[in-house]
Amino acid sequence: MTEITGRTAIWGILADPIHQVKTPQALNALMNARGVDGILIPFHVGASDLDTLVAGLKAMRNLKGFVVTVPHKTAIVDLCDDVSEQARAIGAVNTVRREVDGRLVGEMLDGAGFVAGLRQGGIKPGGRSVFLAGAGGAANAIAFALAEAGVSRLTIANRTRSKAEDLKQRLAEHYPSVPVEIGTTDPSGYEIVVNATSLGLKEGDSLPLDVTRLTPDQIVAEIIMQPETTALLAEAKERGCRIHHGKPMLACQLELMAEFMRMHP
Amino acid sequence: MTEITGRTAIWGILADPIHQVKTPQALNALMNARGVDGILIPFHVGASDLDTLVAGLKAMRNLKGFVVTVPHKTAIVDLCDDVSEQARAIGAVNTVRREVDGRLVGEMLDGAGFVAGLRQGGIKPGGRSVFLAGAGGAANAIAFALAEAGVSRLTIANRTRSKAEDLKQRLAEHYPSVPVEIGTTDPSGYEIVVNATSLGLKEGDSLPLDVTRLTPDQIVAEIIMQPETTALLAEAKERGCRIHHGKPMLACQLELMAEFMRMHP
Repeated sequence: MTEITGRTAIWGILADPIHQVKTPQALNALMNARGVDGILIPFHVGASDLDTLVAGLKAMRNLKGFVVTVPHKTAIVDLCDDVSEQARAIGAVNTVRREVDGRLVGEMLDGAGFVAGLRQGGIKPGGRSVFLAGAGGAANAIAFALAEAGVSRLTIANRTRSKAEDLKQRLAEHYPSVPVEIGTTDPSGYEIVVNATSLGLKEGDSLPLDVTRLTPDQIVAEIIMQPETTALLAEAKERGCRIHHGKPMLACQLELMAEFMRMHP
Repeated sequence: MTEITGRTAIWGILADPIHQVKTPQALNALMNARGVDGILIPFHVGASDLDTLVAGLKAMRNLKGFVVTVPHKTAIVDLCDDVSEQARAIGAVNTVRREVDGRLVGEMLDGAGFVAGLRQGGIKPGGRSVFLAGAGGAANAIAFALAEAGVSRLTIANRTRSKAEDLKQRLAEHYPSVPVEIGTTDPSGYEIVVNATSLGLKEGDSLPLDVTRLTPDQIVAEIIMQPETTALLAEAKERGCRIHHGKPMLACQLELMAEFMRMHP
């Protein structure tokens, strides 16, 4: 890591709790590799103090931006001066750039990271049919990114149907040309099957969809990084499906975050 | 430097401009040597935004403290929740500790650093007569620290007499047992002679006191670090005086800052 001087630019990550975050390690390594005189540090802030801290960060002239994670992704939207249309529709922001005049510009890169990861793996979502398990925070971001990428149709399957309906409605407003349906646990007939729930994170979790309906012509993609091969991916592999791990989503998203927050030398 | 993780503790330095500060290099080296999982970074903030930034820093739970320098040393006093009696009398704070509950505790360590530097050089100010040139920020801090150290008497010489009178009055309130007088440029008859003005920083500066009156039994101390040997020190040395450089003041103060802000492993 470069020595910190009065000229070193500052980036941060806002979280509560903060101990577990891995973004400082990842983005400091990226900056180091690129020769950026900058550092990303953890800012530990509770939900009730978020507005006060963010006002302070606007006043910090050498702060270039910050990553936002649990539990602040929703609350930060209204604290930004400018938010992309997609982030507003999703209702969440995870990356903020501070302009020279102090204006905070927010973006949501979870979904873009997922799509970039697919593409990096040689899977182009444009023109293909997608089955998406989940309608929570990650699923929202991914659904919008898939719609943006021009999938031929998208089916959302979620245990709580109202959340899927709500997501469907917001997608329809922003991407009227993409047919969106509410699905069951049956993924058959879709070219790409995506798990965007947290099922698979813990041992003994039930499967997020009916794996007995998977066929070898399907691609099954995961957002869970740990374990690397979830029960879903193991079942899919056994059935001859092409599988796509959760890790590329993060790696690609870190690149997108660095670009959005202008981590340049 | 240690890798930054979610567990790394944060310290800062508040300044405007920020580019020239050297505290990050010095205190990060100190933390590194002591095995502290912490980092001190520059926070660039203008005078009109100081209150907003400080409110934000109170909300940052992993922030342990910050150094304060030009132009914020006076304004920060009223933004602290608690300030030492001496710092309040001086009217300036240069080091702030953030307690776990967010309370900010301020202290002024410029003078204590100077006195610690003298002691490190084997010069004990207690019981000795002191001639002090200057009545500005640094001189104020040093005058209070010398009074605290128990000098036998203190004479203040300043071009603008009203500032010296004001300092004398505040010293009398807090250290009624220390005789304080207003002096001329003549340092004769004092055991320790201190330059606490900025004269000597630039080539061609006039001397801060009448060096022709110095005698070999006197100690002449400087606060200017660069050049290491000022014109005053050169003249004093030529007249057989013992001289004390400006550098130990900073080195000792960095130790005091680290202690006050609890930079422990």
